[in-house]
Amino acid sequence: MIDNQKLANTLRSFAAEREWDQFHTPKNLATSIAVEASELLELFQWSRGQKGWDEVTDSSIRSKVEEELADILLYVIRFADKAGIDLQAIAERKIALNAQKYPPEGFRGSDRKYDE
Amino acid sequence: MIDNQKLANTLRSFAAEREWDQFHTPKNLATSIAVEASELLELFQWSRGQKGWDEVTDSSIRSKVEEELADILLYVIRFADKAGIDLQAIAERKIALNAQKYPPEGFRGSDRKYDE
Amino acid sequence: MIDNQKLANTLRSFAAEREWDQFHTPKNLATSIAVEASELLELFQWSRGQKGWDEVTDSSIRSKVEEELADILLYVIRFADKAGIDLQAIAERKIALNAQKYPPEGFRGSDRKYDE
Amino acid sequence: MIDNQKLANTLRSFAAEREWDQFHTPKNLATSIAVEASELLELFQWSRGQKGWDEVTDSSIRSKVEEELADILLYVIRFADKAGIDLQAIAERKIALNAQKYPPEGFRGSDRKYDE
Repeated sequence: MIDNQKLANTLRSFAAEREWDQFHTPKNLATSIAVEASELLELFQWSRGQKGWDEVTDSSIRSKVEEELADILLYVIRFADKAGIDLQAIAERKIALNAQKYPPEGFRGSDRKYDE
Repeated sequence: MIDNQKLANTLRSFAAEREWDQFHTPKNLATSIAVEASELLELFQWSRGQKGWDEVTDSSIRSKVEEELADILLYVIRFADKAGIDLQAIAERKIALNAQKYPPEGFRGSDRKYDE
Repeated sequence: MIDNQKLANTLRSFAAEREWDQFHTPKNLATSIAVEASELLELFQWSRGQKGWDEVTDSSIRSKVEEELADILLYVIRFADKAGIDLQAIAERKIALNAQKYPPEGFRGSDRKYDE
Repeated sequence: MIDNQKLANTLRSFAAEREWDQFHTPKNLATSIAVEASELLELFQWSRGQKGWDEVTDSSIRSKVEEELADILLYVIRFADKAGIDLQAIAERKIALNAQKYPPEGFRGSDRKYDE
C-alpha cells in the first residue's frame, strides 16, 4: 500500500513551511516530474539496464535508482493533490483502457504497439 | 490509499498475457516513464498551466492530464515491482532526506534550491 | 554557419579514440539528447525563464545554458552523422511542413496549436 | 553546413506572422526541446534502436526520425537566436571541455563516464 494521502499531507506541510506553494503551478510540477524521470533514465543512458534486473540490484546504483524513483512518485502525488485527482481511480481506469486498446491476441510478443 | 501491490499484479498479468515481459528491461521502463512524463508536460508546453490549478480542472484538458499521470504512475509501479523496490518506504526516506537538505529557514520563499 | 560536417568528424575521432562507438546506438543517442534537453529544462524548473530573455543573459546561468545547449546540438549532429541524415535538408523540409500545418490566419496569437 | 542564421531568420518571420513570439520564453522553448527529444526517444521506446543504425534506415521509421530530429534542431536554433548564443562557438568550446574531462586513456572502451 502507498499511503498517498498521508504523503500528500506531508508534502503540503513541506511546501507551506518553505513558502514553495507559489512555485507549484501545473506546468512547474509537470516539469519536475519530467526532470526527475530523465534523471532516472540517465542512470541507464549507455549500456547499463538493457538486459536484466540484476543490474539494478547492485549497490553502486541501487540507492540512486530508489532516490530518483521516489522523486518521481512524490511529484506525481503532489501534482494529484493540487489537482484533486484520485490516483487509485485513474490508475484502474487507465488499465481498463489499455486492455481495450491492446487485446492480447493482436499484440502477443510484439512491440509494434509503439511502431505505428 | 494506492493499492500498488494489486496494481502491480494486474500489470504482471497484463504483460504476461501479451508476452511483453521481455521488453520490460530497466532501461526500457525508465524510457517509458520519461516518455509519459514528457507527454504530461506537453499539455503545458506553451502558456497553459503557468498560473493556477483551475486551468487543469477544465474538461478539455482534465481527462488527458489524468491519462498521462496514470501512465507515469503505472510505469513507476511496474518498475518498482520488477526491481523489488518498496515505494512507500523510498518515498518516506526521500522526504526525510529532503527535510535535511532544505531546512525551512534557509529556503523560505526562495527557488534558489535549483539555482546552485 | 554551423560546420556540422567538421563537428561530426571531430565527434567521430573523439568516439574512436575512446572506443565509444559501440555505445552509440540509435536508442542510446536518442536517450542522450533527451537527457541533455532535460538538463537544459532543469535550469528553468521553477520560476526562472518564464518571462524574458534577459533572465538568460545573467552570468550565473549563461554558461550552464550554453553548455547544455551545446550538448544537445552535439548529440543531434552525432545522431545525424551515424544515421546519414542531412540536417540542413530536414530542417528546411520541416519548416515547409509547419507552414502548411499552421497557416498564419488560423493560428494568429493563439497557442491552441498544442491544445488539440 | 547548417545555415543556422538563415533558418533562424525564417523561424523569426514564422513566429512574427503568427504572433507566437510572446510564447517563446526561455522556459517554453526549453520545454519544447525536451518534448521533441522525447518524441524522438519514443521511436526507440521498446526493442528498436538498441542494435544498429540499419534499423533507422527502414522507410517505416526514417521519416519520423527525420521529423523529430528536425524539430529538436529548429528549437535549438530558435533558442540560440532569442538568447544571442553562437552555436558553432559553444559547440567547439564544449568539445574542448569534454576532451579535458574524458582523457582517452582513462575512459577507453568504458561507459563508466556516466556511472559516477
